[in-house]
Amino acid sequence: MSAAVLSGKELSAAIRAETAERAAALTAAGTEPRLAVVVATADESSAWYVRSIAKAAGKAGITCDIVDLGATASPESIRARLAELSADERVHGIILQTPLPAGASLQELAGAIAFEKDVDGANPVSLGRLAAGLPAFAPATAEAVVRVLEHHTIELTGRHVAVVGRSMVVGKPVAHLLLNANATVTVCHSRTRELAAVTSAADVVVAAVGRAGMVTADHVAPGAVVIDVGTNPTEDGGLAGDVDADSVSGKAGALTPVPGGVGPVTTALLLSHTVRAAGG
Amino acid sequence: MSAAVLSGKELSAAIRAETAERAAALTAAGTEPRLAVVVATADESSAWYVRSIAKAAGKAGITCDIVDLGATASPESIRARLAELSADERVHGIILQTPLPAGASLQELAGAIAFEKDVDGANPVSLGRLAAGLPAFAPATAEAVVRVLEHHTIELTGRHVAVVGRSMVVGKPVAHLLLNANATVTVCHSRTRELAAVTSAADVVVAAVGRAGMVTADHVAPGAVVIDVGTNPTEDGGLAGDVDADSVSGKAGALTPVPGGVGPVTTALLLSHTVRAAGG
Repeated sequence: MSAAVLSGKELSAAIRAETAERAAALTAAGTEPRLAVVVATADESSAWYVRSIAKAAGKAGITCDIVDLGATASPESIRARLAELSADERVHGIILQTPLPAGASLQELAGAIAFEKDVDGANPVSLGRLAAGLPAFAPATAEAVVRVLEHHTIELTGRHVAVVGRSMVVGKPVAHLLLNANATVTVCHSRTRELAAVTSAADVVVAAVGRAGMVTADHVAPGAVVIDVGTNPTEDGGLAGDVDADSVSGKAGALTPVPGGVGPVTTALLLSHTVRAAGG
Repeated sequence: MSAAVLSGKELSAAIRAETAERAAALTAAGTEPRLAVVVATADESSAWYVRSIAKAAGKAGITCDIVDLGATASPESIRARLAELSADERVHGIILQTPLPAGASLQELAGAIAFEKDVDGANPVSLGRLAAGLPAFAPATAEAVVRVLEHHTIELTGRHVAVVGRSMVVGKPVAHLLLNANATVTVCHSRTRELAAVTSAADVVVAAVGRAGMVTADHVAPGAVVIDVGTNPTEDGGLAGDVDADSVSGKAGALTPVPGGVGPVTTALLLSHTVRAAGG
């Protein structure tokens, strides 16, 4: 028995098609949807990711401005630029790309992104509003997890979901989205004792730790659904998930692939959020 | 065997004494710490609670303004008054008392409380900042849970805590505070399947459901620590916890009493937050 493959490609294509339609309608009505990606790093995989967003935005009819402040930008200058973009009526979505220069904190700086334009849910305000059930954008990766589950009609109400990882980018926001979907949610992390026992009690395991192959068959109950959020670069230039797929797929009921699972849905949601922020 | 009693009285007295000292120092330096409690209800138990805060504030040397807008106040007028108090330099802490008039939402209105003055952590921004590890006030009840555990030297790192209840006032913020303290956290709620099995897997159970006696011995592991956040009014004018103490105390290792557990610490923390907000 091999676990069912929970692909994100079909869902991603559907979100992109809908986004392109809404972008075209907005543009026809005189509003050109525009996303600003603020970069302050010379990191190569970041540059690759930003180019892939810009390309996807272009295909969807969204203008993407890459605002490169250089790898030595000060926190103050980054904050000032975010505030400027927040006030700029032509800009609808703002992303602050990581990594950031030493001394700069994503959460502190993201507070300068107007929450209405915070299409990757980086401003702590967005998390607070999500938790309160108020309108806000979730981090695209966290939302992608829930959207993939829903797309594959995996019931969440009353089900026990273990989230491995407690970051502000995935673990914490996905916990709130899952609670909003009426799941019982356990958040595990590096200090969790007997991790395998805790995650094996769950119907669904979300792996968001950023360590290749960390989640193995020992961590999942027979038949469980496993969502792999990991995008760890491999030596040969590829991507490895947080889940050891060879080990897990013989035991789990279903598993998202890496690449081709949560990743493409994340990018599609960033664009979808931008169009919504533009009023589409 | 009967569970150890985790009293909040000693801790509450210590926080109050420290708060009174800081309030006196602030007043001597020319800053009179001031708390505004905004009320828009004719509810009797709310009025009782507000009087008890005002009395405790007075004892601590904190001026407490009860701003009664009446039970028919519109959401707009409540929001306007909160914004006015947020801008008033003489006011250091602001609480919006519940219940609110029909059509008014605590989370939406609390967005108008400046987070620096949000001494009961009602603004969703405060929750987001707590989750991000940025300075913010937690809801006093949620913080009281963690302070009681710490006061009784109950280790949290790596321990599994089940929180029953997912409100913005207790369940969600206490989950973040417990994660910050390196606990593994499970949030359960009304839709959780097999609640007793889930909570019985935890080292610590936090009951915050608002239903008298809901948590019984079936819900707790032998020797577990149980924190009772419930303050359900009884017919004879007393208070009943969410935990059925008679049932649980024969099985749990330790249990907070109601009254005298989390409650007095909550009030003390509200005052402590106000003095901190005033710079003390």
